[in-house]
Formats: sequence, C-alpha cells, structure tokens
Amino acid sequence: MQTGTVNPRAAHLSLALRHVADATDGISRAGIAARTGLNRSTASSLIDELITGGLVKETGFHKGAAKAGRPATALGLRDDGPAGLGIDVNVDYTAVCVVDLTGALRYKHVLAEDQRGHTTREILDRIARLARGAQQAADADGLTLCGSAVAVPGIVDRAHTKVTLAPNLGWRDLDVTEVLPADIHDGRTTLDNEANYAALSESALLRRHASYLFVSGQIGVGAGIVLDGTLYRGAHGWSGEIGHLTVDRDGPPCPCGRRGCLERYAGQEAILRAAGIGSDAGTSFGVRPTVAVLAERARAGCPATVKALTRAGHVLGDTLAGCLNLLDLTHVVLGGIYRELAPWMSPPIEHELSTQFLGAPWAIPTVQVATYGPEAPAIGAARSVIHDVLTNPLRWLTR
Amino acid sequence: MQTGTVNPRAAHLSLALRHVADATDGISRAGIAARTGLNRSTASSLIDELITGGLVKETGFHKGAAKAGRPATALGLRDDGPAGLGIDVNVDYTAVCVVDLTGALRYKHVLAEDQRGHTTREILDRIARLARGAQQAADADGLTLCGSAVAVPGIVDRAHTKVTLAPNLGWRDLDVTEVLPADIHDGRTTLDNEANYAALSESALLRRHASYLFVSGQIGVGAGIVLDGTLYRGAHGWSGEIGHLTVDRDGPPCPCGRRGCLERYAGQEAILRAAGIGSDAGTSFGVRPTVAVLAERARAGCPATVKALTRAGHVLGDTLAGCLNLLDLTHVVLGGIYRELAPWMSPPIEHELSTQFLGAPWAIPTVQVATYGPEAPAIGAARSVIHDVLTNPLRWLTR
Repeated sequence: MQTGTVNPRAAHLSLALRHVADATDGISRAGIAARTGLNRSTASSLIDELITGGLVKETGFHKGAAKAGRPATALGLRDDGPAGLGIDVNVDYTAVCVVDLTGALRYKHVLAEDQRGHTTREILDRIARLARGAQQAADADGLTLCGSAVAVPGIVDRAHTKVTLAPNLGWRDLDVTEVLPADIHDGRTTLDNEANYAALSESALLRRHASYLFVSGQIGVGAGIVLDGTLYRGAHGWSGEIGHLTVDRDGPPCPCGRRGCLERYAGQEAILRAAGIGSDAGTSFGVRPTVAVLAERARAGCPATVKALTRAGHVLGDTLAGCLNLLDLTHVVLGGIYRELAPWMSPPIEHELSTQFLGAPWAIPTVQVATYGPEAPAIGAARSVIHDVLTNPLRWLTR
Repeated sequence: MQTGTVNPRAAHLSLALRHVADATDGISRAGIAARTGLNRSTASSLIDELITGGLVKETGFHKGAAKAGRPATALGLRDDGPAGLGIDVNVDYTAVCVVDLTGALRYKHVLAEDQRGHTTREILDRIARLARGAQQAADADGLTLCGSAVAVPGIVDRAHTKVTLAPNLGWRDLDVTEVLPADIHDGRTTLDNEANYAALSESALLRRHASYLFVSGQIGVGAGIVLDGTLYRGAHGWSGEIGHLTVDRDGPPCPCGRRGCLERYAGQEAILRAAGIGSDAGTSFGVRPTVAVLAERARAGCPATVKALTRAGHVLGDTLAGCLNLLDLTHVVLGGIYRELAPWMSPPIEHELSTQFLGAPWAIPTVQVATYGPEAPAIGAARSVIHDVLTNPLRWLTR
C-alpha cells in the first residue's frame, strides 16, 4: 500500500517476470498485459527489457491463445542466464549445487565427511574448494552465477551474514561468506538455517502459495515454516527450532543445555542408539549412509529398528501435533532422514496427528514425503538466489 | 503486486484514511500526498470524499507543518461516525462494548453469570438483549453501528460465521449471528476465537506492526498470534490453541479428550484447585471475581496460593518458551486472568523463557502485561469492525 516507496519500474519488471515464470506452458505479451493489468505497450516494453537483459526468451508460437491473425509469440525463462549457487554445510557432509532461472538443478556435488574431526579452517577451505568447482561447472555450462546462499545447521544472523551458533559444528559468531572466492558470490551471499532452505526446495507447494511445516531430520531436527508460500523466519531468523521443543523435562540431557529435547528422541543419533546401531555406521551422504542402514534393517524386519522408528515417529508426531495446534497448517513435509524412513515413521506420525491435533475431527493434516533428501537444503538455498532475481530483476539488469 | 486485481480508488481511499489514522498528532492534505506518493490534487479529492462520507474531519490548523503562508488544515478521524460492536460470550460472563472510529471505548456492559447452568437459547437471548442495549447507547451517543464481531471460547468457522465447537459452552455447529437483531449487524457480523480478538486489543503493539503472542488465561487458555501487526489465524482459523499443548502425556485428563494439556496446569480452575480454593468462589467478572480472590490471597502471602501461581507460571513459561522456539517472537503479552496475576506469575515465566528459549543468550523476549483484562476480547472484537472500515472505507461510503 505504500505506493510512494516502491520504484514502479522495478515493481512492474518483477510483476511481468513473475507471470512469465508462473506460466509453465508459456505466455504471450498480450497474456502478460491481461494478467498484470498493465496496458499492452507497457507490458511489451517490459518484456523487451527482460529479453535484452537475458532473463526471458521467445520460445516459439503460443498455442494456447491461437485466434484469428498472426499467432502470438510465447515467452519463457532463459535457462542459460543467471544461476544460483547453493551450499549446505552439514555435520557429516558438505553439498553444493547450481540451479538455473527455471529452477532446474544443473550441478550437484556432495562430499561425505564428518566435520566433527576437523578445524573450522579445514571446513571453510573445503567449502571454498567445492564452491570453486561449482563455479567452473556453471561457467562450462554457459551459466552466470549471480549469488550464493549458505545453509548451516544452527542459528544465523542474516543481517550480518554470520553464523551465530552452530553447536554441532562448534561454530560461534563466524562469517562464513568471507571464505567464498569474491568472484563467485559477487558480494551477494545470504545465509540461513538449513531447515529453512530445505523448506524452499518444495517448489510444488510454494507455487500454490501453500502453508506448511517442513521438518528436517539430521543429527539435529529442524523445521522450516512456510506461510502462504513465504518462508516465515521470525524476529531474528530463529524460527522452527522444533528439535529443542521439550518432550520430557526429566529426559536425557541435550547439548543445548536443556533436557528431554525432541532431538534426543527423534534425531538421527537417538534413533540409531535406540535401534542398537553404532553412530559410526555411516553418514547422511556416505558410501553407506546411516539412514540407508536403518531403512535396510527395517525392511528386513529387524524388531529393534522397527521399534526405534515407530517410537521416534510417535514422539515426533506428538510434537508436530503441538505445532499444528499452534499454527493450524494443512501440510507437514517429512525431509532429511525422515524422507527415507517415512514407510515406518509416517504411520505413527499420522496416528498422533489424528488424535492430538485439535482440528483433526474436521480436517486431518496431510503428511507428505519431501521431494528431495539430504540435498534439499543446498537446492533450496540455490533457489532462494533465483527467487531474489525473480523478485528484483532490476538488480540483475543493472549489474 | 497484482495491480490488476485491486480497485485503485478503493485502495487509494484506504491508503489516505490509514495515514489520517496513523498520524495521531494530525496531518494536512499536503502531508497525505507526501506520505502516500499520490499527487496533491488526487490526495485532496480523496480527503474531500472521506470528509463528505463522515469518516474524516478538519480539526483546526496543523501546527507541525507551519511554514510561510496560510497554515494547513489538520485532519483527524471522526469520533461521531461509524462504530463497531464487540460481543464476548465467555464461560462465566458476557460482555459487549462499542468502539468509535478512533478506537476509543464508548460503551461497555458486562453481565457476570456462569453460562454453564443455562440452555443455548437462554445464552443467545442474553446476547441479543445486551446487543440491543449497546445499540441504544450508540444511538444516544450519535454513533452509527456499522458491524459487529462476536468472540467465543472455541473453534469457529469464520467463512460461515458458525461456532464449530465451544466445549465449555456445550456449543457445536451453532450460528451465533442469527440471534443478533438484523438492524444491529446490518448483515455484517464476524466471529472469532476470543484469544484472537483479545490480541487485537493491544493497539500500541499493533500500531508499530509488532509480532507477539497474546496469551489469555480464562477457564481455558488461548493465544492470539500477531505477525507484523496482523492476526495470524491459520488455515482454518484454529491457530493459537496453546491450552491444549501437551505438558505431560501421563497428566490429568482434559475435556478435549487428551491428557496433560496446559489448561490442566495453568487454567483458572487448575490454579484455584492447586491453591485449595473452590471454583465457586466467583467468576471472572463477578462481584468478587475469582482472579481477585487469588490476587488477594497472594498479596496476603498465603503460601498455597503463591505456590500454585508460581507453579502455574513455570508450566506456562515452559510452554511459551516452546512457542518462541518455533516462532521467534520478541513479545509475550499476558492477558485474561494472567494480567492481574502477573506479579506472581511473571517471574517464573521469565525464568523459563531465559532458560528454555534457545535465542535467550542473544535476545530475551519481553513479557508484558495486557492493556485490558477480561474485557479485552470484546474491545478487540469491536476494533476489528473498525479495522475493516479503515481497510475498506468504500464499503462504508457506498452503504
């Protein structure tokens, strides 16, 4: 409503670009005019500017709008222009990926290695190496990296692109962005909690402006809250700390300093312990990932493993029901290790939601499996870079 | 951004009116133009339309903008135009109030009577009688009721203005609005959970677009979640059911069908029981309200009462810390009975937040006492009617 504070050209370019992006089956200049409410000559000149700037291309004739006369030219996003770099620094792996303007994954590299045996310097050097590799791959593919986003398992200070605290990495007040080669991030690096970025990897839900809770199981348990298609970060960017909701105040101690946190019951290591498997069995992304070991044993009917997963599902489901009693969301997405463990964890989760969610007699929430597994944070991070280009194309056009 | 979908005149009228409302020290036509980004003749004609329509008045000369030449005319909201009717149907009282366009409370009537001994018909008749009284008071005061809003302790279906379930009133699928005399609500009645409306009574926080959790202690415990100055209702309007978050799965049974809900530890009757006071000591609003009995005994140093309040504070604080770990809010407002009991309940609540909220080492949330006590839902309900007029003045102007 503050019409005086927005640059109208920037807003109109973004509006036109957004309609090109949303029309997955192509759209004409006349279609952009009709959907934005702008007049045809304005719409046409905005599209010309987006084409010249390398964001939009003509993709042929637009079949949908065929009428008498010359067929309209269909428009689409370019897949050889700007691209986003996503980096995920997790406890037992580092992942990088490159996503183009259409949201397609163009490059992915995962290094499975437990960070806990390494110094901060070693971890940061590893990130820089992986980022450099992604940069070279993007170059070779004709893409231009226009920004990067780093996902970390902890609390971040987005305004100062600092990791405030990542207990499992031993990081405190650390500026991760400084280690990225300057020509890669072009001064445009953002930072967020890995569960927040993972939530942004669910493009189908985002496209229909859904509200959902993305719960990500790792060593820790995090959640990304999406309201009406927009990530809800909270006052400081600390929202979604579901892993430290209290299950039992007299429960086992947690590295966060409290007792009986959800992580102690439904985190990766807690499940392994309950299943009688050593936590050295593998990593999230290793040759033989931990989660694969769990899934394999559960499939083979190992009673201890099935019991451990069922119990973790009940505890997680009970906590999720509490979140829904507070937030009244229609969808829960199971990500991270929960994605592969869903065959055993979904039934107890759904049982808890149907008995513990107050609205269940009228509307049972949908529990669905995440589109991506452990690579979700890196993909969501890269997509957040693309989202910024779509929201503010003028910055790309005037770079 | 969907510029094509909004009536520009309606949007501009709303924008101009909002700036008049926000400028508590008066604003001139030129000031409206400057703040909205509209040109001066457009701004001036919008203001003229709002003056003719009885929403805005000229209040004298505007001192703030004194320059050379003729002093500008200051503008303000009219306090003799449209007014909102708020009705709160609670378990042990019914309240009505009338609020004018400036947000000022112009009429209030509370009937302390436990509803639990009465039929739905009797309760509805009582509401109609109180609404009629408010109508007459508004008329006599030169105000025009332009809508009503009804607060209920339960789950509502706002789209169909129905109470889906209010367990403590024994209501299920009930259309409350039908009982209101037609000339009062003019077909414009809205419905919401009482904690949601109570949250809207905090005008100082709303004005600065704060995000906060308003927790309302009554027979039940509810919460209203306000994000960036807007009430967050959730997918079905069921958000904020904090009273049914689980404190202990093996705890005492709750009327909702679960066990160990927060209400069983921090609700009015649970506190009374723990303090050894019979629940027949009074009502929220009675001659000698229950909460006054508790406060009186606590002030006198009664150990059982102080212990009961301290314990309830710890349990409530622990649950609130969980809510903040999920939502990362900066403010918690203690409403309902917690307002008067804050001297004893705030310290344990603050203790829990400082130890159980994960972000506490960097930012301790502010715990503040609500502006209004049990009358908050009725005031917030009436203000929601006014908010609708400020947001959509065209509906009032073309009525």
